[in-house]
Amino acid sequence: MLLCSNLHHSKKIMSEILKAHLQKFITITDEEFAWIMDYFEVKTFAKKQNLLEEGQICRANFFVTKGILRKFHLNEKGVEQTTEFAIETWWMTDNISFEHRTPSEFHIQAVEKTEVLVITSEAQEQLLSRFPVMEKYFRIVYQRAFAASQNRVKYIFSLSKEEFYFNLLKRHPEFVQRVPQYLVASFLGFTPEYLSEIRKKSVS
Amino acid sequence: MLLCSNLHHSKKIMSEILKAHLQKFITITDEEFAWIMDYFEVKTFAKKQNLLEEGQICRANFFVTKGILRKFHLNEKGVEQTTEFAIETWWMTDNISFEHRTPSEFHIQAVEKTEVLVITSEAQEQLLSRFPVMEKYFRIVYQRAFAASQNRVKYIFSLSKEEFYFNLLKRHPEFVQRVPQYLVASFLGFTPEYLSEIRKKSVS
Repeated sequence: MLLCSNLHHSKKIMSEILKAHLQKFITITDEEFAWIMDYFEVKTFAKKQNLLEEGQICRANFFVTKGILRKFHLNEKGVEQTTEFAIETWWMTDNISFEHRTPSEFHIQAVEKTEVLVITSEAQEQLLSRFPVMEKYFRIVYQRAFAASQNRVKYIFSLSKEEFYFNLLKRHPEFVQRVPQYLVASFLGFTPEYLSEIRKKSVS
Repeated sequence: MLLCSNLHHSKKIMSEILKAHLQKFITITDEEFAWIMDYFEVKTFAKKQNLLEEGQICRANFFVTKGILRKFHLNEKGVEQTTEFAIETWWMTDNISFEHRTPSEFHIQAVEKTEVLVITSEAQEQLLSRFPVMEKYFRIVYQRAFAASQNRVKYIFSLSKEEFYFNLLKRHPEFVQRVPQYLVASFLGFTPEYLSEIRKKSVS
């Protein structure tokens, strides 16, 4: 009984987070939002649990309400290369696999215990056709995600390894604090040892 | 008189290219499309002409109907680093500057003589609010652009320099043919000399 009521409470908080995020960009009534929520499922993933593995078709889009997800692939040396993180109110999916239903080249994994609202590709299509206002919401979400990704490409090419780290620290200090250092290193394309050296140098 | 009629002809062809691209993703009537076209201006840029310079606010979104655009920035050594190309039916803008009206950190330049349909940020906002179906169109455009950008990050991290070139050649052979080799090198983060070596090796 207690568990059940906790779960219910949790879903309510999660839906409030999504609602607030929608309302940043679009206008919707409470009634519409109740319908919209019907397209989502609540899921919780344990630390290091995989939401998606390479070779699987990514059938879901994940909206983080608590915790952190990361996307990574294994490079030819078998080393995990993290290409993206998603914290609260960020979406994550493998867009190519999600759109074209092809096997994914990525893993998606929970960095810490993570709560997400999940929408399948079929449900998202139905949602968009039933609530065209959600097209605007996702247009803005993707527009910003694209801009962030373009900036990332720019930084990769134009910053030295040290600058790359300090740029991340300056832009997302909370993030560098929360994420284990070996994953920060993986995101920057460093070895953990190299990151540790830079950090030591900056303290001294 | 002749010039005038050519220009008119040219605008008609350009609008047909945009219309065909819209119709890949959304349904619109001829009448609606005529209204939509009113938000666009036709512009032609000479080879190497800048559409945007670093420090300027990027007030326009460019839809290429003929030619090639590239986006680049100068790295700390003053070397041009190309981060993105746009060929026919691709959009290009500096999304961050366009959305937030902040000075751009990029240049946008015509690689060859290029014809574009131009929409200003104000006009795009009006267009989207008057024709909500355009939200779906831009949602799909940005969703795909984001997916392409994510793949690019993956390739940068996971492929060796040689693989990076052959991957581009395999995926976009027409593109490697059309774009001057020093710009292909700039897109891959190579020196032109290094690219020339790889090409020689692959022929022999």
